[in-house]
Formats: sequence, C-alpha cells, structure tokens
Amino acid sequence: MSSSQAPHSTLLIPGPIEFDDAVLQSMAHYAESHVSPAFVKVFGETLTLLRRLFQSTNPAAQPFVISGSGTLGWDVVASNLIEKGENALVLHTGYFADSFATCLETYGANATQLKAPIGDRPSLEQIEQALKEKPYKIITITHVDTSTGVLSDIKHVTEVVRRVSPETLVVVDGVCSVGCEEIAFDEWDLDVVLTASQKAIGCPPGLSILMMSGRAIDRFKSRQTPPSSYFASLANWMPIMQNYENNKPSYFATPPTQLIHALHTTLAQITARPMAERFAIHTQTSDRVKAAVAELGLSQLAAQPEAQAHAMTAIYLPEGLTPPDVLPGLLKRGVIFAAGLHKEVATRYIRFGHMGVSVTDPARNDIDKAIAALKEALTEAKQAKGL
Amino acid sequence: MSSSQAPHSTLLIPGPIEFDDAVLQSMAHYAESHVSPAFVKVFGETLTLLRRLFQSTNPAAQPFVISGSGTLGWDVVASNLIEKGENALVLHTGYFADSFATCLETYGANATQLKAPIGDRPSLEQIEQALKEKPYKIITITHVDTSTGVLSDIKHVTEVVRRVSPETLVVVDGVCSVGCEEIAFDEWDLDVVLTASQKAIGCPPGLSILMMSGRAIDRFKSRQTPPSSYFASLANWMPIMQNYENNKPSYFATPPTQLIHALHTTLAQITARPMAERFAIHTQTSDRVKAAVAELGLSQLAAQPEAQAHAMTAIYLPEGLTPPDVLPGLLKRGVIFAAGLHKEVATRYIRFGHMGVSVTDPARNDIDKAIAALKEALTEAKQAKGL
Repeated sequence: MSSSQAPHSTLLIPGPIEFDDAVLQSMAHYAESHVSPAFVKVFGETLTLLRRLFQSTNPAAQPFVISGSGTLGWDVVASNLIEKGENALVLHTGYFADSFATCLETYGANATQLKAPIGDRPSLEQIEQALKEKPYKIITITHVDTSTGVLSDIKHVTEVVRRVSPETLVVVDGVCSVGCEEIAFDEWDLDVVLTASQKAIGCPPGLSILMMSGRAIDRFKSRQTPPSSYFASLANWMPIMQNYENNKPSYFATPPTQLIHALHTTLAQITARPMAERFAIHTQTSDRVKAAVAELGLSQLAAQPEAQAHAMTAIYLPEGLTPPDVLPGLLKRGVIFAAGLHKEVATRYIRFGHMGVSVTDPARNDIDKAIAALKEALTEAKQAKGL
Repeated sequence: MSSSQAPHSTLLIPGPIEFDDAVLQSMAHYAESHVSPAFVKVFGETLTLLRRLFQSTNPAAQPFVISGSGTLGWDVVASNLIEKGENALVLHTGYFADSFATCLETYGANATQLKAPIGDRPSLEQIEQALKEKPYKIITITHVDTSTGVLSDIKHVTEVVRRVSPETLVVVDGVCSVGCEEIAFDEWDLDVVLTASQKAIGCPPGLSILMMSGRAIDRFKSRQTPPSSYFASLANWMPIMQNYENNKPSYFATPPTQLIHALHTTLAQITARPMAERFAIHTQTSDRVKAAVAELGLSQLAAQPEAQAHAMTAIYLPEGLTPPDVLPGLLKRGVIFAAGLHKEVATRYIRFGHMGVSVTDPARNDIDKAIAALKEALTEAKQAKGL
C-alpha cells in the first residue's frame, strides 16, 4: 500500500472505507471562511461534480450537500416531498427500509412496506400490484441494503412506476450504491437519490448528499403545508445550493468546510474517468469476491446473483460459527470486516465491503489480502471450535 | 505563527476560526470503523471531556455530539423539548433569535419574541414581566449573538426564571460562546446549551453539540407525543451517547469519525487547563480589542460594556464607509474579518472574531496584527473616499 497514512488495518466494511491520501490531506485544510471566494468556488464545483457522478445534465435537477449523516437524507425526503396523511410505498430489502419507514411516519406520512424474505427483493410484479392498490406520493427503494447486501433493480422498478403510477416520486436510498453501482439519474428518470459521503464516494463521514429531479423540486414547491423540518427544509437549502453553484456566497448554516474540500478531491478523482469504467471494476472485483466465497463453500444472504450488490458481500458463516469467532482472526491479519446487522440473522453472518480505492487502486492489494485472510481466519475458527 | 499549515490569511471572523496544528492533523486520521474499540473509546472520552468544558459533574446531565451544523441544535430543542401548541419565550438580541423562533414554529410551538433594540438585550425586569404573562415551556437565550456581538447574562436570566417560572427550561444558544464565555452548567442551573464545533471550541465545522440537564431529559421523557423529527430525535441519540460514554459500540447513524477525533484533540487541549484561565484570557484580549476600537474613534453595536461579547467585536464603520471599502484592505494585510450580518445595519459594520488559538497562543501574534491592520485599512479607505 503506497500511502502516507499511519500504518493501520485495512478497513473493508460497507463504509466508512479506506481513503486516498489526497482526500485525507484535504481534510486538514487550513481555516477558511465559508463565504470566502476560494471556498465558494470549491463548494460550487463540488455540486457540479455531483451532477457528473449522477450522470445528470438536466439543469432542472438539483444536487444538495448538507452537514449530517446519510440518515439526514430520509428527513429531507420525509419533511419536504410528502405531506401528512399521504402514502409512501417502502420496498423492504433489509434493516434500512424499516428505519426509512419510521422516519416517514415521524413526519406524518403513511408508510406501507412491501417486504421480501431476507436476502431477496420484492418482484416487479409485486411492486406493480402494490402501486395499483393505492395512490402513492413516493416509492422508496434501498438501492443496496447494507444489512443484507441485496441490490435492487432501480432502473426497472422506475419503469414500472412510470407505467403504472407516473406521478409517484421514485426515491432511491443510494447510501451504499452511489459511486459503485450504475446510476443514470436522468436516463432512468429517477426523482431522488440520497447518499452519504463515507461509502463508495470515498470521503470521510459527515455529509448528507442528495440529487433531486425537477419533478421532485416541483412537488416540493406545490406543497399545501410548509416543510415539517427546519434543518432539513429544502426551502432553506435550495437557494444556498443554487447560489454556491453560481459562485455566490450564501448563508443558512455553516458548511463543514474541510469535508467539502475532501468531497471535492474525491469527486474530481472519480469523475476524471468514465463512470462506466468505475462500475465495471467494482463488478469485476465483486465477481472475484463472490467466486472466492463460493469456493470456501459459503453462501450469501443475497441468494440470486442479479440481487447481489457489487460493493459488498454479506456472507453466511459455517454452521456453528458467529462473527466473534472470525472477526478477530481477520483483524490479526490486518483486515477489518463488519458483523451482521439484520437483527433476525445478525449472529450468523459477516459483511465484506469492497469499494473505492481498495478496488480501484490495485497497488494496494487490499482485496486479495482480504480473501486470503478470510480463508485463513475461517480455517482457524473452525479448528478452534472443533468443526 | 509557528505552524505546519500552508501559508494563509489569518481567519478572524466569528467562526470558523484558526485551528491548532494537532487538531487539523486529527482531521486526517486514517479510515476507522465507527464501532471499533479504538474509535468508541475516543468518542466516549470526547463526551466526558464535554462535561468538563461545561463545568458539569451532575451525572443526570447528558452531552450529545451529532453530525450536523450548529443550526441542527435548534431542531433538537424544537422537536424534543416542547410540543405542538406550547409556548416558547425567545429573547431577541439579533439575527439568530429570529431563526430559532422560525425553527420552533416549524415544529408547532408558539414562539413569543422579546425584542431589544439593535445592540441591546432585554432587561431582567422585562424578562420577569414576560414570564408572568403566560406559561412558557422553554425560554431561549442567544448567549452571544454572532450578528451583533451582544452578550446575554444567562446566569441572572436563569435566576429570574427559577424564581418566577421554575419549570421553564432555560435553553442557551451557545454557538458563539462555548469555550470562551463563562458557562457553569450545573451551578447556574441551565437546562440546555447548544453549540457548534467551529467557534471557540476550535474544531472544524460539522458537529452539533448539546449539553442537557436531567430536568430537560425528564421533560423529553414525559412528552405526550413522539419527537417530531427523526434525525434530531433524542429517542434515537440518547442510547447512542450513553453507550459510547460507557465504551460500548452502538449505531444509529454513522458518526463523522475524523471530526470526532479533531473534537477530542481540541477538548483535551482546552480542558488541560482551568476553564477560568481560558475565560480570563478571552476577556483580557477582548478588553484590548475594544480599547483599540475606541481609540480609533469607532463604536460597537453592543453599546453597554456589560453586554459586549468577549470573543468578537461588531464595529460600526466611520460614516461613509461600508464593509467592501475596508475588508479588502484587511485581506491585503493578511487578516480576514466578516461583513455585517444583521440585515437592518449590515452595510454599516464589520465583525472581528477573537477566540481560540488566536487568543490563547501569543506566539501567533494574530490579535496585534489584526489591530494594526484595522487601523491601516481604515486610514486607507477614508483617504480613498476623501473622508
């Protein structure tokens, strides 16, 4: 690993992820006014780079970067794009749909969950049927559920929505997908993609990032009631984002200047090459990881290949082993994986994140090291348990 | 200035402020899991250090550190500590009271503003009278209004509240005061102090920080309705903070790991010395700045000495000059001040922030340099205008 960073175990969880040196150097940027010409330029360029990340050229679409965790994106949606008593259809592929539904209900929406068994996703037919049963203002889809590694087919789900219920806003939770899974915001006619800085975008945590369509912005503008949040209100943030991108200083709340610099650095790196190339290398790496997992005789939570995420793999452990049996053996070999998160099966699986520089910088050798470590740690754990 | 940072103009606005090198180095911390033992320890210690910053030893009090701008603290108060239709008394000393009132009303509270003329603050008699007129669930006080440099007397206001309306929660907006103005959380019987990372605490922006009394926590627990926000809900954050401080990993939303490291570094530096010493040096420096301003024949927005903040000075410009006449002359001399913010007088004044390392590290010479630059820039601007 060619890095100026202090020696540390390689972080291969589904976010935060390993950082490029230049990104971390941006985090240590000297003090700067949030309304200085230099910073306004960096923030404005960052918003423009986000359009490229989302493959969007439609000027009606609007990117947002707000100080907060990815979770804050749910509040932005729930308090601006749907009103009290209106219906939301929540496609459930793991832990994060439950939480998004709770957030929607906090602000007064009625959230109907369409649940798939663990490791699966609702079918297009089920989604079509659900959409025909009630008028839904929004449908939410977790693009990759970080708790299960299930990938949703947002392109075809959106096609169904446009055919059956064209005015329903398509809201994608892309926290674990933006920057690694293919997303063509304009072409696929998406309305919202919300994400965070610390996963495949490769920036430290602390930024809530959203891309919104003109249709979503129009829906916000035609609300009958004011937004039901203050810090997450689009009425407060929209002029700020528009001003920054037009190189004009503007103030609602102090932006996290160092994190914005880091986001600018990583987005400039990512968008310097075609996005298709980035998606392809994540897919190739994912194929390699999944083949290694199969070779170890292990199965994934996401059973069907087409529903498997390309930037993480949720791996069932051999019968008799739990995460605490395996994770220390990985750590001993310099690799950090995550424990299970989906409460019904949390003790039965581990999660391997493979995204960002660990995937795009072959000189790091992170993925091969992790695969070898997994093999050894499993063998060791099985021996210790007499399995 | 002894620093490893790239050469840059000295940032002397009322936040963000200049950073210590060690704080910026913490911002570039390598990737780390938010549930790793090492990070959990740092986060837990940070919460304990916050108790010392607030001079609080009461175990019933609870510190919070949340990813977001200082503004998010208003949402935390408005969506957890007051319910729809209940009354809030908002003491107005500038721009920030208007915004806090708007936030309270967003979540359904009735906000009554008690306004003082620009540069002044409501008197204790006016506050007492207002409290007798209606039952107020909370009273909000901007400790230092960054738009005017007016300092509120939170100790004596709280005494009035406890005497006249003892159950009213005292909520202090300490964004521009925590770390530079005296605050004795327990001794003064405060209920909430909310702040941000980027002012006198000396950490980059991106953290919303709150300290809450047992009385405030009890008020939250006895709500009739659930919290009206999701990301700002204490129900979501309280167990997380308690777990972190008890050294247990916990997850609601991914914390901004690098910013937490930076906060830990600066809090360890600040609390290594008695807080009284820190308040004293800010007061001494403020006296020096205010004497220099008077010597230049200029007046402050905050007219009465007892209502003048100790970490910033809002300075009326000579008749005929506006901020764009003076700020470039300061910048030319390596010093950055801020323009006016209070909309009624914004074109007539500038703001000089004097807090954090610029005050506590005399080797930097930031304050003397700024005073000299102000004198020269004013002379130059007056000559250019033929004044």
